[in-house]
Amino acid sequence: MRAARYYDRKDIRIEDVEAPELKPGHVAIDVAWCGICGTDLHEYLEGPIFIPPAGHPHPISGESAPVTMGHEFSGTVTAVADDINDLEPGQNVVVEPYIISDDVPSDNPEVNYQLSPNMNFIGLGGRGGGLSEKVVVERRWVHPIASHVGLDQAALIEPLAVGHHAFVQSRAKAGDVAIVGGAGPIGLLTAAVLKAEGLTVYISELSEARKAKARETGVADQVFDPREVDVADEVRRLTDGAGADVGFECSSAEPVLDMLIDAVRPAGVIVNVSIWGHKPTVDLPNLVLKELQLVGTIGYAHDHPRVIELVEQGKINLEPFITGRIGLDALVSEGFDELINNTEHHVKILVDPRA
Amino acid sequence: MRAARYYDRKDIRIEDVEAPELKPGHVAIDVAWCGICGTDLHEYLEGPIFIPPAGHPHPISGESAPVTMGHEFSGTVTAVADDINDLEPGQNVVVEPYIISDDVPSDNPEVNYQLSPNMNFIGLGGRGGGLSEKVVVERRWVHPIASHVGLDQAALIEPLAVGHHAFVQSRAKAGDVAIVGGAGPIGLLTAAVLKAEGLTVYISELSEARKAKARETGVADQVFDPREVDVADEVRRLTDGAGADVGFECSSAEPVLDMLIDAVRPAGVIVNVSIWGHKPTVDLPNLVLKELQLVGTIGYAHDHPRVIELVEQGKINLEPFITGRIGLDALVSEGFDELINNTEHHVKILVDPRA
Ligand SMILES: [Zn+2]
Ligand SMILES: [Zn+2]
Repeated sequence: MRAARYYDRKDIRIEDVEAPELKPGHVAIDVAWCGICGTDLHEYLEGPIFIPPAGHPHPISGESAPVTMGHEFSGTVTAVADDINDLEPGQNVVVEPYIISDDVPSDNPEVNYQLSPNMNFIGLGGRGGGLSEKVVVERRWVHPIASHVGLDQAALIEPLAVGHHAFVQSRAKAGDVAIVGGAGPIGLLTAAVLKAEGLTVYISELSEARKAKARETGVADQVFDPREVDVADEVRRLTDGAGADVGFECSSAEPVLDMLIDAVRPAGVIVNVSIWGHKPTVDLPNLVLKELQLVGTIGYAHDHPRVIELVEQGKINLEPFITGRIGLDALVSEGFDELINNTEHHVKILVDPRA
Repeated sequence: MRAARYYDRKDIRIEDVEAPELKPGHVAIDVAWCGICGTDLHEYLEGPIFIPPAGHPHPISGESAPVTMGHEFSGTVTAVADDINDLEPGQNVVVEPYIISDDVPSDNPEVNYQLSPNMNFIGLGGRGGGLSEKVVVERRWVHPIASHVGLDQAALIEPLAVGHHAFVQSRAKAGDVAIVGGAGPIGLLTAAVLKAEGLTVYISELSEARKAKARETGVADQVFDPREVDVADEVRRLTDGAGADVGFECSSAEPVLDMLIDAVRPAGVIVNVSIWGHKPTVDLPNLVLKELQLVGTIGYAHDHPRVIELVEQGKINLEPFITGRIGLDALVSEGFDELINNTEHHVKILVDPRA
């Protein structure tokens, strides 16, 4: 079968590899669609980061580069191991793409399995990936999804789960007011979750294309451009002077984080969803005076069932976030390079590994 | 009566002023002891900060410099207004020294009254202060304390409440492990609360004098010097690799905050107790990966009853934290200047405004 394999920075190859074998406790899946993620771009341009470099096998998967890429994917079950009786061939599924030690339970809601030692991702740390025709996945990471949801939209469940986990970390509830800093893919998908969960959502964004997307997708009640207005002042004006209940940093930009610290009400919560390449300066003096809580979020845990439910019920329509569809051979030229050169015009490019 | 009055930076005068008059809803108190606080030193060296400058009256108190200083004080009730029947002359009391709008309730446990607009402190924003012989205070800020507690120790209830509020903000519980960064006055008093509330307490501190004080007061299970050991490694070694449950930044030093982000376990809480004069760089990449919560804390709210209980029950002995006793005339020479020149050798210098 064909697969996109990461050898090293700037060295991704579309190759023929052996199809993975079904094992006890596992599920065989034909991949339908796989999204390209900012993390994949970082591996391509600056990596290996999550990917274990050649000669340095990952402590859980035992694999190192070259590895198959792709962690945002949907597909159809083709076979299940004999010891599995709650999934069957023909079912549509999405994968929660974790590589986590067998010792760490994922069915105990108290366990933050995403924080367990050496956590990595299918499609980065080994165990195949969605940028290939077939994949075999541990039962516990396979989530069925109703057949009325398109498998193209289903490929966006994974980044949507990132947004949902950020929402959970914020401890916000229906009726609360949120300010989201940045309308890139994660900002938009986080906003989509917040809107579906009943919050009022404001977005701050500089890029014209991203502002347009935020408006067109309907995820925001209002979109502000920080060059045109003082965003924190606007948020206070719209909340009787109180400020937002929660803020979401989705831009990796220091002025945005400072704006959120200004815009969120005393005792409110700011979730840092973005990935920082450096240690930023933070307006701690203001954070302290307002008793704000600045909270990290990484991946997801126990989020997939709720996210799938929101999409199955039509509370989130993922179609407008799909901005490109390509075949596997075009992965670098029409996928990675296009996302690098035209970042602001894309949310998610999907890859059909059979095309 | 005599009072220490703040006119401007480096201009504090011991003067004769009129004694305050009792008003409805208020309590008249003869001050016994008043502590000198880091905040007072900041006002002296770099202020006015909290103090409203001459000509800029505080929106709630209506006062501006010169104002009487001192917000950490104990005393004895000499008279109560006719409309007050739950306090009587002769009772020992401490003051929760807030200037907060009458509209903001302080008896509703859900209300974060310390975060209300224009909050200020008695002894900084007006309404008299503890660095004078007499003070008249709104009933709601006056807390009785048992007569078996010395009024000298009682003057430390206020900074102890700051430490207790930090403990509440951390959501820690008995049995948890805490790492405190910095053993200055607030670090030590925070550690004292943590120890009294049943936590295991580790302290990181560079200064020999402060390390000695942390050991001598018994507030820490272990004291680490970051020049001698990797503090985060030591904390992990003592917690079976897990890390501390909570961390407390009490030093205003970036390396200490980074150490706490390293030393606290995934999903743990770090409370910023210190005051930052600038926007520090923060190890957000690590905070995000570990899903840590960085929480601000300012003053106290609803903390005094529990703090008084801990001291009345003998669970916290405040005597070892008193490192000097002076009269009002010596305030600057033996108080402020001594604290500036010999910072590391002092925890709290107390002033007797009658001496
Ligand atoms: Zn991703
Ligand atoms: Zn103080």
